[in-house]
Amino acid sequence: MLLLHLSDVDEASWAKRFAEALAPYPVVRRGDQFDPAEVRYIFVWKPKPDAFEGLTGLRAVLSLGAGVDALLKHPKLPDAPIVRFVDEDLSQRMSDYVVAHVTMHHRGFSKFQADQKARRWDQYYPPAASETAVGIMGMGVLGQDAARRLKPLGFAVRSWSRTPKSIDGVEAFTGPEQFDEFLSGTDVLVCLLPLTPETTGILNRETFGKLRRGRLLGGPVIINAARGGHQREAEIVAALADGTLGAASLDVFETEPLPQDSPLWNIPNCFITPHVAAISNEASGVRYFSGIIKGHEAGEPLINVVDRGRGY
Amino acid sequence: MLLLHLSDVDEASWAKRFAEALAPYPVVRRGDQFDPAEVRYIFVWKPKPDAFEGLTGLRAVLSLGAGVDALLKHPKLPDAPIVRFVDEDLSQRMSDYVVAHVTMHHRGFSKFQADQKARRWDQYYPPAASETAVGIMGMGVLGQDAARRLKPLGFAVRSWSRTPKSIDGVEAFTGPEQFDEFLSGTDVLVCLLPLTPETTGILNRETFGKLRRGRLLGGPVIINAARGGHQREAEIVAALADGTLGAASLDVFETEPLPQDSPLWNIPNCFITPHVAAISNEASGVRYFSGIIKGHEAGEPLINVVDRGRGY
Repeated sequence: MLLLHLSDVDEASWAKRFAEALAPYPVVRRGDQFDPAEVRYIFVWKPKPDAFEGLTGLRAVLSLGAGVDALLKHPKLPDAPIVRFVDEDLSQRMSDYVVAHVTMHHRGFSKFQADQKARRWDQYYPPAASETAVGIMGMGVLGQDAARRLKPLGFAVRSWSRTPKSIDGVEAFTGPEQFDEFLSGTDVLVCLLPLTPETTGILNRETFGKLRRGRLLGGPVIINAARGGHQREAEIVAALADGTLGAASLDVFETEPLPQDSPLWNIPNCFITPHVAAISNEASGVRYFSGIIKGHEAGEPLINVVDRGRGY
Repeated sequence: MLLLHLSDVDEASWAKRFAEALAPYPVVRRGDQFDPAEVRYIFVWKPKPDAFEGLTGLRAVLSLGAGVDALLKHPKLPDAPIVRFVDEDLSQRMSDYVVAHVTMHHRGFSKFQADQKARRWDQYYPPAASETAVGIMGMGVLGQDAARRLKPLGFAVRSWSRTPKSIDGVEAFTGPEQFDEFLSGTDVLVCLLPLTPETTGILNRETFGKLRRGRLLGGPVIINAARGGHQREAEIVAALADGTLGAASLDVFETEPLPQDSPLWNIPNCFITPHVAAISNEASGVRYFSGIIKGHEAGEPLINVVDRGRGY
């Protein structure tokens, strides 16, 4: 039996699709009549405190989110393996966001928008993509997809990750000892890291101060499409004000929704989107997790299982 | 002898580089002492009315611009072949502009910027790139380069050109008879056409009304990085106001610089840049034209010669 436990999304719609895909395998939702002990899989998004109560026969927790940092903090999280959502459609959408914001900043968007407001015709020619280095922090599925899409655009692409990752044409840096070298050659810093104790607050003033200067008009740029916990918002505000950063694109925030009184709303070279960089698509989510359930029931091992020690 | 005749750019700097690249071949500028009859090549940008006077030994006119529409209207243009600038660096810069503006609009930039201004947290999820069709008008070197860079991003790419052009993965449409079909499946319309009598004013209300609706929030989008003569600005203003168009990115204008009283400046979903999409880079320009002069002097045929009947 599969139990759905989803907040803030259309649970009924997911349940209908799962029931179709898995039939005759039973699919239930909270509020339905069922014996918790018969639940073998639970599909979760923002689970409530009592989400896992009575699930004595649980074989796996299936997470709608690609990031599991919040799930791992659930006080009643059972011992069962956690399967993350890894999906081509999700990667495509995330890369769409990353490429749009990298290219926008590379083309001096803040400057031209200010000029337009002032009706000023000032011919600044941005550097070619080949003269601009994009540094991606986090080389999981999402980071690798972004790198593969930025590369054919002509950008110099660099990566930074915990363990060595080799991608054709991407200059790879690994671990804390190569972090400064990675930053010193980066004009646009993209965060696609998992949120772990090591990466919490990594987008801070010290990091910003180590980025390369002089290539992009106004200064280096950060783009965060990972988690609000990666960023120190007060330090971003200060860095945008004093020119340590030329611009920022933020899709995630320390508190979401972003509070009405946040100074970030009103900074012209800070580009805010409301955590929409990538959404898990229902059709591909059902396809992915149905495949996992069917395979597991047939005796195949689970894939994309979270390493709890590592945190992702 | 090579004569330089460049307006609005640093002619002295070009002359120095050409002299170095061609030495001992003579390179002169207006104002220098030389016999006009000895000039075999003239390198021009915005030539004055008397630019070609006395050049009785001219073998070729070399144009710094990729577009030659203005040059072809020069009343004293000699009969010598005209060589256009075709250059990888120029193509890269033009594609940088095109990709930045396509992706910006695809990601609903106008909506999110309006929301930010209003401190509104409204989660709209843009379609995936694969669900969005970019239609490129003009499949010369620039159009082909843009198509090749948009394709790996996942966009559905369509092309429209005067003569059939086949590019892997790009749906090709040809001639006036397939124009409507091309438009009807296009969400983002990119103009990279040469300016000819046939293409003058092609970005008009009738064209806009034939674009696909319903895919991009707010309506279809146009991007013009070719010539101001392609667009009817009064009709763009009206189409942006009544929702026929969702947004526009314009790098070129009917009159440049864009007049202070143009209504375009003040339209929030119209994104103005001051004819900076792509600039001819000195280093690559000198490399390209020096190669052409040396080759031609050694008896090789000229390349990228303008067809005056066709207009490009």
